[in-house]
Amino acid sequence: MDHASGDQGAFGQGAGAGDWDADLNGDRLREECGVFGVFNHPDAAAIAAIGLHALQHRGQEAAGIVAYDGRRFHSERRLGLVGDTFSDARVIDRLPGQAAVGHVRYSTTGETLLRNVQPLFAELDAGGFAIGHNGNLTNGLTLRKQLVRDGAITQSTTDTEVILHLVARSRKARFVDRFIDALRCIEGAYSLVALTNKKLIGARDPLGIRPLVLGQLGDAYILASETCALDIIGATYVRDIENGEVIVIDDEGVQSHKPFPPMQARPCIFEYIYFARPDSIVGGRSVYQVRKMMGQVLAEESAAEADVVVPVPDSGVPAAIGFSQVSGIPYELGIIRNHYVGRTFIQPTQNVRDQGVRMKHSANRSVVAGKRIILVDDSLVRGTTSVKIVRMMRDAGAREVHFRIASPPITHPDYYGIDTPDRDKLLAATHDLEGMRRYIGADSLAFLTVDGVYRAMGCEARDPARPQFTDHCFTGDYPTALTDKAGAVASQQLSLLAEAS
Amino acid sequence: MDHASGDQGAFGQGAGAGDWDADLNGDRLREECGVFGVFNHPDAAAIAAIGLHALQHRGQEAAGIVAYDGRRFHSERRLGLVGDTFSDARVIDRLPGQAAVGHVRYSTTGETLLRNVQPLFAELDAGGFAIGHNGNLTNGLTLRKQLVRDGAITQSTTDTEVILHLVARSRKARFVDRFIDALRCIEGAYSLVALTNKKLIGARDPLGIRPLVLGQLGDAYILASETCALDIIGATYVRDIENGEVIVIDDEGVQSHKPFPPMQARPCIFEYIYFARPDSIVGGRSVYQVRKMMGQVLAEESAAEADVVVPVPDSGVPAAIGFSQVSGIPYELGIIRNHYVGRTFIQPTQNVRDQGVRMKHSANRSVVAGKRIILVDDSLVRGTTSVKIVRMMRDAGAREVHFRIASPPITHPDYYGIDTPDRDKLLAATHDLEGMRRYIGADSLAFLTVDGVYRAMGCEARDPARPQFTDHCFTGDYPTALTDKAGAVASQQLSLLAEAS
Amino acid sequence: MDHASGDQGAFGQGAGAGDWDADLNGDRLREECGVFGVFNHPDAAAIAAIGLHALQHRGQEAAGIVAYDGRRFHSERRLGLVGDTFSDARVIDRLPGQAAVGHVRYSTTGETLLRNVQPLFAELDAGGFAIGHNGNLTNGLTLRKQLVRDGAITQSTTDTEVILHLVARSRKARFVDRFIDALRCIEGAYSLVALTNKKLIGARDPLGIRPLVLGQLGDAYILASETCALDIIGATYVRDIENGEVIVIDDEGVQSHKPFPPMQARPCIFEYIYFARPDSIVGGRSVYQVRKMMGQVLAEESAAEADVVVPVPDSGVPAAIGFSQVSGIPYELGIIRNHYVGRTFIQPTQNVRDQGVRMKHSANRSVVAGKRIILVDDSLVRGTTSVKIVRMMRDAGAREVHFRIASPPITHPDYYGIDTPDRDKLLAATHDLEGMRRYIGADSLAFLTVDGVYRAMGCEARDPARPQFTDHCFTGDYPTALTDKAGAVASQQLSLLAEAS
Amino acid sequence: MDHASGDQGAFGQGAGAGDWDADLNGDRLREECGVFGVFNHPDAAAIAAIGLHALQHRGQEAAGIVAYDGRRFHSERRLGLVGDTFSDARVIDRLPGQAAVGHVRYSTTGETLLRNVQPLFAELDAGGFAIGHNGNLTNGLTLRKQLVRDGAITQSTTDTEVILHLVARSRKARFVDRFIDALRCIEGAYSLVALTNKKLIGARDPLGIRPLVLGQLGDAYILASETCALDIIGATYVRDIENGEVIVIDDEGVQSHKPFPPMQARPCIFEYIYFARPDSIVGGRSVYQVRKMMGQVLAEESAAEADVVVPVPDSGVPAAIGFSQVSGIPYELGIIRNHYVGRTFIQPTQNVRDQGVRMKHSANRSVVAGKRIILVDDSLVRGTTSVKIVRMMRDAGAREVHFRIASPPITHPDYYGIDTPDRDKLLAATHDLEGMRRYIGADSLAFLTVDGVYRAMGCEARDPARPQFTDHCFTGDYPTALTDKAGAVASQQLSLLAEAS
Repeated sequence: MDHASGDQGAFGQGAGAGDWDADLNGDRLREECGVFGVFNHPDAAAIAAIGLHALQHRGQEAAGIVAYDGRRFHSERRLGLVGDTFSDARVIDRLPGQAAVGHVRYSTTGETLLRNVQPLFAELDAGGFAIGHNGNLTNGLTLRKQLVRDGAITQSTTDTEVILHLVARSRKARFVDRFIDALRCIEGAYSLVALTNKKLIGARDPLGIRPLVLGQLGDAYILASETCALDIIGATYVRDIENGEVIVIDDEGVQSHKPFPPMQARPCIFEYIYFARPDSIVGGRSVYQVRKMMGQVLAEESAAEADVVVPVPDSGVPAAIGFSQVSGIPYELGIIRNHYVGRTFIQPTQNVRDQGVRMKHSANRSVVAGKRIILVDDSLVRGTTSVKIVRMMRDAGAREVHFRIASPPITHPDYYGIDTPDRDKLLAATHDLEGMRRYIGADSLAFLTVDGVYRAMGCEARDPARPQFTDHCFTGDYPTALTDKAGAVASQQLSLLAEAS
Repeated sequence: MDHASGDQGAFGQGAGAGDWDADLNGDRLREECGVFGVFNHPDAAAIAAIGLHALQHRGQEAAGIVAYDGRRFHSERRLGLVGDTFSDARVIDRLPGQAAVGHVRYSTTGETLLRNVQPLFAELDAGGFAIGHNGNLTNGLTLRKQLVRDGAITQSTTDTEVILHLVARSRKARFVDRFIDALRCIEGAYSLVALTNKKLIGARDPLGIRPLVLGQLGDAYILASETCALDIIGATYVRDIENGEVIVIDDEGVQSHKPFPPMQARPCIFEYIYFARPDSIVGGRSVYQVRKMMGQVLAEESAAEADVVVPVPDSGVPAAIGFSQVSGIPYELGIIRNHYVGRTFIQPTQNVRDQGVRMKHSANRSVVAGKRIILVDDSLVRGTTSVKIVRMMRDAGAREVHFRIASPPITHPDYYGIDTPDRDKLLAATHDLEGMRRYIGADSLAFLTVDGVYRAMGCEARDPARPQFTDHCFTGDYPTALTDKAGAVASQQLSLLAEAS
Repeated sequence: MDHASGDQGAFGQGAGAGDWDADLNGDRLREECGVFGVFNHPDAAAIAAIGLHALQHRGQEAAGIVAYDGRRFHSERRLGLVGDTFSDARVIDRLPGQAAVGHVRYSTTGETLLRNVQPLFAELDAGGFAIGHNGNLTNGLTLRKQLVRDGAITQSTTDTEVILHLVARSRKARFVDRFIDALRCIEGAYSLVALTNKKLIGARDPLGIRPLVLGQLGDAYILASETCALDIIGATYVRDIENGEVIVIDDEGVQSHKPFPPMQARPCIFEYIYFARPDSIVGGRSVYQVRKMMGQVLAEESAAEADVVVPVPDSGVPAAIGFSQVSGIPYELGIIRNHYVGRTFIQPTQNVRDQGVRMKHSANRSVVAGKRIILVDDSLVRGTTSVKIVRMMRDAGAREVHFRIASPPITHPDYYGIDTPDRDKLLAATHDLEGMRRYIGADSLAFLTVDGVYRAMGCEARDPARPQFTDHCFTGDYPTALTDKAGAVASQQLSLLAEAS
Repeated sequence: MDHASGDQGAFGQGAGAGDWDADLNGDRLREECGVFGVFNHPDAAAIAAIGLHALQHRGQEAAGIVAYDGRRFHSERRLGLVGDTFSDARVIDRLPGQAAVGHVRYSTTGETLLRNVQPLFAELDAGGFAIGHNGNLTNGLTLRKQLVRDGAITQSTTDTEVILHLVARSRKARFVDRFIDALRCIEGAYSLVALTNKKLIGARDPLGIRPLVLGQLGDAYILASETCALDIIGATYVRDIENGEVIVIDDEGVQSHKPFPPMQARPCIFEYIYFARPDSIVGGRSVYQVRKMMGQVLAEESAAEADVVVPVPDSGVPAAIGFSQVSGIPYELGIIRNHYVGRTFIQPTQNVRDQGVRMKHSANRSVVAGKRIILVDDSLVRGTTSVKIVRMMRDAGAREVHFRIASPPITHPDYYGIDTPDRDKLLAATHDLEGMRRYIGADSLAFLTVDGVYRAMGCEARDPARPQFTDHCFTGDYPTALTDKAGAVASQQLSLLAEAS
């Protein structure tokens, strides 16, 4: 315990007791975006708004829609949730047209800039185009530097804008060729939706790291990050866009381009562990069932004697159900979540904050008191939350607290569109298992193994030669070149302009 | 099925397919308030804000706090959630003082008036006082009419204001005596918190219909509708205020008055079934455990052969867990709730609305498809939601849908602070069991029995001579006189002033 | 000069150089209200909004309208200018009906309370009524104390509310009789408009201190503080309401009541000097012509050798034109006013404030440099502005500055609805003429004499036995009893409730 | 009269009776901008805010400031008045640094786009720079087309952005050389302020069409469109930037560049007639005195027998004073302006609008009734206002109305930064003098002659070979090439993106 509280200082900076609730979300990995496109629907913008709403979990900072009405493009990009802006009929009325692309974006702390809200838009001499991007380029800064040296003027600090300039400067005649020209220059992870005055285009990077699916709604085609965005609008799922595929939708129908040499796909495992919605089907697998299976494998790998299985709400719920089913230990709601917590409830005074008030969750004492409990969570990042959850359980009278994590220890940062803390903030990168256990104060701690993950995914095991998934966070095995990192471009200031809004 | 769709017309008016989400909340009983008081705390208003936030489920229309700083009263009353207003430090700064009372209020459709937001405030010649009220008077309109005839000028359309005028007109010298004078005139349900320049007062009606508890936080005393408001601020639970008790807290400590003849308490059973938060202890019982027990008794009373038990989120969760545990049928999340649905996501166009888009919930197809499912909900009011849930399950491929309700059929309206629809809108008041089953389209339908409720509450059975709980919604057995209703005062226009804001 | 800067300390506290612009308005007397009523017009609320807009100079803190639609009253009361709220068609739509009363209110520093915004509304058993008040009662606090002692609950801190309670408690049967009952209890200055479910009522106190006129617009009747509110809506002026008259407008037409013993009228002289709009006709006199005449008499009484006559904009303009015409000295714009100064331009940093930046006015150097100038202003209150104007003229190169005030020295505070500073803040109450001249730093200073005022008004002279106007600010001759002041009730705290908004 | 009302139809479309007030402003020429720069002042942004406030008359649509703190640029650009945004200390706090440039922009109807609000900002590889522009390029669209063809991505629809791209693409090493490279490509009118990480730069086009002055405030240098912006901050006037001059201010001091062949200056005459503030000194002349002189020359050229001279407020005031002084006919305020008209007072219902309610001005009947009046205005554009003013004067009882315009008839549109209506909307382009008189309904009408203008400016006469001023609006004599107009580029759609905000 001594050591634990010492460690806590090292990790807990900026996370006082009162930050509990922020942490319970803050101590998560964060997806950086969701994309949506619709072609040939009379209510394109409204459909896009609802689709983005279903993708809200992929990004809560900002949302944008660009629609094309056959004559002009119309753009609405705003900070805040989709519903904050796009449930207003007047906003939708300002987005006429039968085709639209949209984007939700996650809130990084420092750079909540309106100018970075996507879809980005540019005008070529041949016409306008809008683009929305999920993922992250690993050579974005290197390209950006070159472009500025050549006289380009940038309007955002996103890597996505690089694609716009590359398209604008391509000497090809047709838009699709200019687009593919641009894709050939970029590295990393991208699922893109783009809209021109004739076409809706979807593209996925050569490894298919981020997801993208095609759907149909009557005569309209839909592109979306996840199937839950098809379900909400009543569209039928057609297929996943393939890794390295560029799909072009226009009045002629759907055309597929494969501009890259064929490679085996390698989708990001974290979509299954945490990002995707449980009711989505990603790469043919039910996310809910995969998560439950992770809990089941975890129960097999790391059983514990206990009275109740308690999920850390809400992300730990499916794994906890799986764990309970395999272990036979009853599943109970030992932590209650307050549904009325808005994004904005800040504890009003420092005094109150210092008392460690918990605005969002509370212990369900009747379940916890006097019991040996197994807490199940989906993943462990900085660990600051887990410390507090364990403490909350003990304060409510838990006799023993066994912490079970339904994924392996995170030891390496991501560069493909997941916001991970620096390596020295990752608990598993700096502590061994016993160190972690002491840090979070649990009676026992166990993680799902990497092979357990692959088993839960239905693979026999991880193929070290050609791994089936992007899993560097657990293994350090990065699937692409990291050009910016190698060139140390990443550290330079992205923009000289500090714009407040 | 034919009859069902016919009935649907009768019940479904104003509830088109697109109203699904509104219904999933709208088709509930609604509590009309929560109250909170704090005495002798340096951050009284901040404490009240956090306490009210924990009581947010009792009322989402409006929130108010009145604080007293030893010299003046300060009041902030606003429409919206507690966090919308009271998480702003500037608002808390405008509420200095060591004592405060607060109130959350539920949104009735037509009369969202700022002037009705509590706590109400009045100035007597001896000083000011503020009052917050949970419950409903059954002779409020009768008294109001008399007061206006005697020259009183009212500022709100609440029954609570009647209490203010009765206090102002009492000829007693001491405030507590004037307050008790007023209580002697009123009938119905009330849990009150009142603040004067010297005292914090709590009171509960002679039957103790609405809850009220006393807590302690260091040197400060707390009054709150539920224990979850004590937990959030770290206060310890002292005891429930008794039925018919008036409790006076001042610098001398806590004094108890019993101005009414002693009666057996008869708390409202719906606090257990639906209103109170699962982590609250009401009348000595864990709300979560009672609900789980209701699911368990229900499983015993009305088993069904099925593959999965699916809760209607979130209110059906504890009963579904109980049902699963007794029946041995696995508990699975067959309905996913979108946590980012704000209060404001209105579907932006009629076209889209007509497609019945579901913004807040979606079927988890991987759980439901091809399965026989048992849906567990806490109660059934108008039934409009249940129709849609059943349809959503069938659309997702459910083979059989067995609907189980963890409380008895609601046949009578409430007059004590629960917002119930008119009798002819209550499904159970107009249909027999088979009629209800056909209306909602389930393969089977069963309710918990009245005796089942009492068993889940730990009673052997309902005592018809002296029922242990207020349960008229199921039994028609109203515990007090209904003076306004008898005099038909209820129907008259409450105010000539139609104020918009 | 030494003495001047010494004095300046005494007066200038809280008025640093940077407060110039605030002062240029702040160093004025302030009217406390304007009233408007309309009966039998299909767009009653819109007409009221426009009428109040024309009366905006009488009060800029807040505006309110109550309309009656034959069934209910509708009220909108807001802080801010009329146009801020009532130019919104949605607000007007919320005010249906053919009759309306409205009010504009001036902003006192400490008590900008929404609950004080008029028209106030009350419900009697016989129906609702709304009231708007221009003026101030001299026994309002005395009456208020009595009412509270008798069990009345007040909703505002206005003296106007006293009238509501007096009406509510009157035992008379007809509304008009109850209204007159109330008027018989009150003392001081009042021009009232009241609206019931049948009648529009106007009333003026026995001396007719504040103005009120009757107009006609087609079949509709209008009541308004000034004729400029008739002009803007195209109504024709019918007549002034007489002192001590109660006028009742209903479907039968217009009825006049005279409940008081007949007295000679004694309207407030400041309506002519400063408050009323120059294009209004008050008591049969053109305000513009009276002001020009005051400048003319001033030029006769206190000539000066000079090169230009410069008005202090905008209130000094008519008198400056008159002064120029009589003296033959050319009229020139030596001070330019920035029309884009909103109410909200606060100088953003202290540094900048300390440099004495002038946001609202600037010297027109080409007119002033090297010249002997006569500055003409309408009145002198605290003198803080005059100091700065003189300094600004000298900074711009004026050779001599002769200050001429087109009204007499203000030596006594008002209690009838004009906001005057405390006596020790009135420059003329504490300095002799030479002291004032030194304080403001002018080469010469002269005021219009009291007899000059009366001459400009077309009287031969002031009749000391029965003065033709209310002029106590210059003479100390108060026209009514000052009950609150005598009883020292004025100093007590008006409300225990400090409500922020 | 018949013909007049016929013509009125032709001109009055979109200008119903109720549009009076809009017209009284709308029927004006509009300046398109004001610029401000400050270097080496600790409160640079606050100083810029105040300077821009003094230039508010040059543009009311939007305002922006970019500040540089030695490390980063900070930008705030907003729709609305300067005071709406920049009187907020928090906004100023977000603009740290000792150097800043600012801009105010006038509101064109259709394109109130935030992305067009200046200063614009761009990042070169060598660092950032911001630019603000007053004037209009006559080859902006031609250049823009070329740039887009070369792969440039534009962020606004302003001609100013062209300058940014030209600078970005220049191959010169030093910023000033790149800036001059860009200036050599552009034609038309421009007064520019630019800010880099080292320098504040000012530039004026070869003819000096738009004004720009240099001032000093302690150790700081100031650039501003007019001297009134120096006066408000207490800066001293140093000199006008010369036509064709580029001035560079940095830590070394002030450097002047003259990259163009020397030409005679030809400043825009409309700065004197209407745009500049009366207290500004433009090109060494007092604007107020010039305007008064125009009134004086007008009185000599076109006398009339009358009783009063009435200015059309506020722009006609100086000329009316001059006219009165020369003619000996008394100057009187026959039209009163309501100072509380906000930008937002829209007449709330159509009924009311149709009654032609005048929200902003009213006749001062006591001055007008029974009189022969001379109305003096500064200029006549579409004439729609004049129609209504004449009608208002007649409604108020004027016996005769003689209209005098203190500038010549406007027959040609502007392309240098003044917003003029299309030629067929210019009254003087389609009517002869008698036609205009009948259209506006005056008893007589006269304009100042072109030679009269030059005389009022102190010239003997206009030099047709080398006119001293830019006066094409009266003469059709455009001082530069009109490349876009010749190439008909102007008519093409500026952007494919219709962004609402």
